[in-house]
Amino acid sequence: VTIRPPAATGDRLADVDTPALIVDLDIFERNLKCMADNLAGKPLRLRPHSKSHKCPEIARRQVALGAVGVCCQKVSEAEIMVEGGIENVLVSNEIVGLPKLDRLADLNRRAWVGVCVDDAGNVDDLEAAAARADAVVPVLVEIDVGCLRCGVPPGEAAVELARQVAGKDHLRFAGLQAYQGRAQHIRGFQDREEAIDQATLLTRQTLDGLAKEGLTCDIVGGGGSGTYQFEAATGVYNELQPGSYIFMDADYGRNLAKNGELFREFEFSLHIYTTVMSRPMPDRAIVDAGLKAFSVDSGMPTVFDIEDASLDRASDEHGSITLRQSIEQPKVGDKIRLIPGHCDPTVNLYDWIVCIRNGVVEEVWPVSARGALL
Amino acid sequence: VTIRPPAATGDRLADVDTPALIVDLDIFERNLKCMADNLAGKPLRLRPHSKSHKCPEIARRQVALGAVGVCCQKVSEAEIMVEGGIENVLVSNEIVGLPKLDRLADLNRRAWVGVCVDDAGNVDDLEAAAARADAVVPVLVEIDVGCLRCGVPPGEAAVELARQVAGKDHLRFAGLQAYQGRAQHIRGFQDREEAIDQATLLTRQTLDGLAKEGLTCDIVGGGGSGTYQFEAATGVYNELQPGSYIFMDADYGRNLAKNGELFREFEFSLHIYTTVMSRPMPDRAIVDAGLKAFSVDSGMPTVFDIEDASLDRASDEHGSITLRQSIEQPKVGDKIRLIPGHCDPTVNLYDWIVCIRNGVVEEVWPVSARGALL
Repeated sequence: VTIRPPAATGDRLADVDTPALIVDLDIFERNLKCMADNLAGKPLRLRPHSKSHKCPEIARRQVALGAVGVCCQKVSEAEIMVEGGIENVLVSNEIVGLPKLDRLADLNRRAWVGVCVDDAGNVDDLEAAAARADAVVPVLVEIDVGCLRCGVPPGEAAVELARQVAGKDHLRFAGLQAYQGRAQHIRGFQDREEAIDQATLLTRQTLDGLAKEGLTCDIVGGGGSGTYQFEAATGVYNELQPGSYIFMDADYGRNLAKNGELFREFEFSLHIYTTVMSRPMPDRAIVDAGLKAFSVDSGMPTVFDIEDASLDRASDEHGSITLRQSIEQPKVGDKIRLIPGHCDPTVNLYDWIVCIRNGVVEEVWPVSARGALL
Repeated sequence: VTIRPPAATGDRLADVDTPALIVDLDIFERNLKCMADNLAGKPLRLRPHSKSHKCPEIARRQVALGAVGVCCQKVSEAEIMVEGGIENVLVSNEIVGLPKLDRLADLNRRAWVGVCVDDAGNVDDLEAAAARADAVVPVLVEIDVGCLRCGVPPGEAAVELARQVAGKDHLRFAGLQAYQGRAQHIRGFQDREEAIDQATLLTRQTLDGLAKEGLTCDIVGGGGSGTYQFEAATGVYNELQPGSYIFMDADYGRNLAKNGELFREFEFSLHIYTTVMSRPMPDRAIVDAGLKAFSVDSGMPTVFDIEDASLDRASDEHGSITLRQSIEQPKVGDKIRLIPGHCDPTVNLYDWIVCIRNGVVEEVWPVSARGALL
């Protein structure tokens, strides 16, 4: 079954069928350029995370603006990115299980595809897969710099794992993965900065330990859309991995900037386009988008087109909007944009991204890695 | 891009790649039979909701066990169900917008495909679409019996809308949609029963009003997996629309039965199969399933295979499990089953359902209506 696109090139925005994921191309391009400009001239590389968009077309645009390649979280995503013309992909994640390791090693025959490790047994499995494929796989040791997710502790444990990697015939020790995921949505600017200061300290200590062993790091990777400016300033990180900056979402929009105001360096370019399907009460509008059209893990989407209205409740296929101003608008059939609470898992619900410029559909991009779980 | 299936017929469960959606076929078949048996001999029809499974193979099995057809929420789902051999489909939802109404009307040339309305303007649009298709579309008036979502108020407003429908050349007034969605997850048995008693009272009053106008209802539909036994006992509802009973989920599992114990009439047949990808701390295991592999709107998934463990935190591609018993198990590479918090939006994340019997993959079903949003 092929899921039909909700629009075709040349359609007016008002004619895009709903629910649909729409991108304002002018804003999207400003976000891409803003990041590229902010990092221009700095001694570091941008490697945007494709888990946010899962779309080779967007990855190609990021590379065209100077990105070294992209990050992925899954081998299947990496396969789709390589297939889509991206020649440098870091799987910024541990990959476990022989089928996936074999696919990862195979992919290295076609492109540069690195991977992270945090377990000695996994390193042995990865070496075996790389040997089977007659490939050499670049490997980053992931350290836990406060994310409390994967990763070995910074310092000696990381050095020991790096030594193991460096001793393998079909692996190449390529550096450290030091992503502080929990810092991304700390609201206060200084609190975010302090979290990255701490992560940087732990990363630097690990780099010192590696240097004593003669182990050098081509890549010291980390940073997300909420903190990248801090990692960029450290002189320690040399690759930044932000994903959400291209779209933004309501959750990132609640972060604070240095001046104490809301973080608006990047603008909201991504919307869920919905239709009002019911007006059962003067203060209630039901739209045709629910839990299968947006993720609610980071809060409900916000209502973009109506003042003083909130989407308070979502069921599988319905969103319930409480209206506080006009009771006349919107009417059944009106179309309303929402800003997703969390862009990454929301994009993953769609097969197509509808690109809008000046009120007209300019392109429709397939979300090729949508559902690429393996 | 075709998303590869995580397993093939004949594979051992242990070799299913992860994350994957797996169904225990013995349990699944018991759930199907349990519902069929519970309703056997009663003067009502079962019309299971396909929004839970989005899978024509499952719909065909439900019909084979006596279901009259299925419910859908979207026209695109109805198209896929009709394509899959289901000849009787109720879109238990309002459909707004000309492209969708035209597709709905067209579909009525191939199968019985009903729809709900709660708005006079929408009835006019539906009539126009049915006229264009030279079809007669069966229409249910949705009344709000406590769901606080779509639907006209019970009583006179519903009678007036039914009268409008009945006056159209290409529409046929087919009954009432009276689903009490908010009652499904009320934990206490008596509280759930009282909510359905109230919904039934409002439905009966509306039926009385319709009868005075000579308007008869072929279908009086409602009921979900949490309340269907109450609607079945009313003598008012004649079609039941449960969906989740085939799978169950953690949220339904928190409902209480009449004896005050947990609702276990149906068993958990659906799991998310995951791999432990990291064991960074003695009390923490990270699995390779996160917000793109399960929905968290109704709470985190529960951990099926490890005692006294909980999945406490999920990011896009990671689930963090806190272990409280053994610190030895699980190891990196071990596979663990989770019970989803909410089955419907979780199933919608997968392209394939892997069917297991006696530890072996018996079939792999496509989730054909996955992502069918339009």
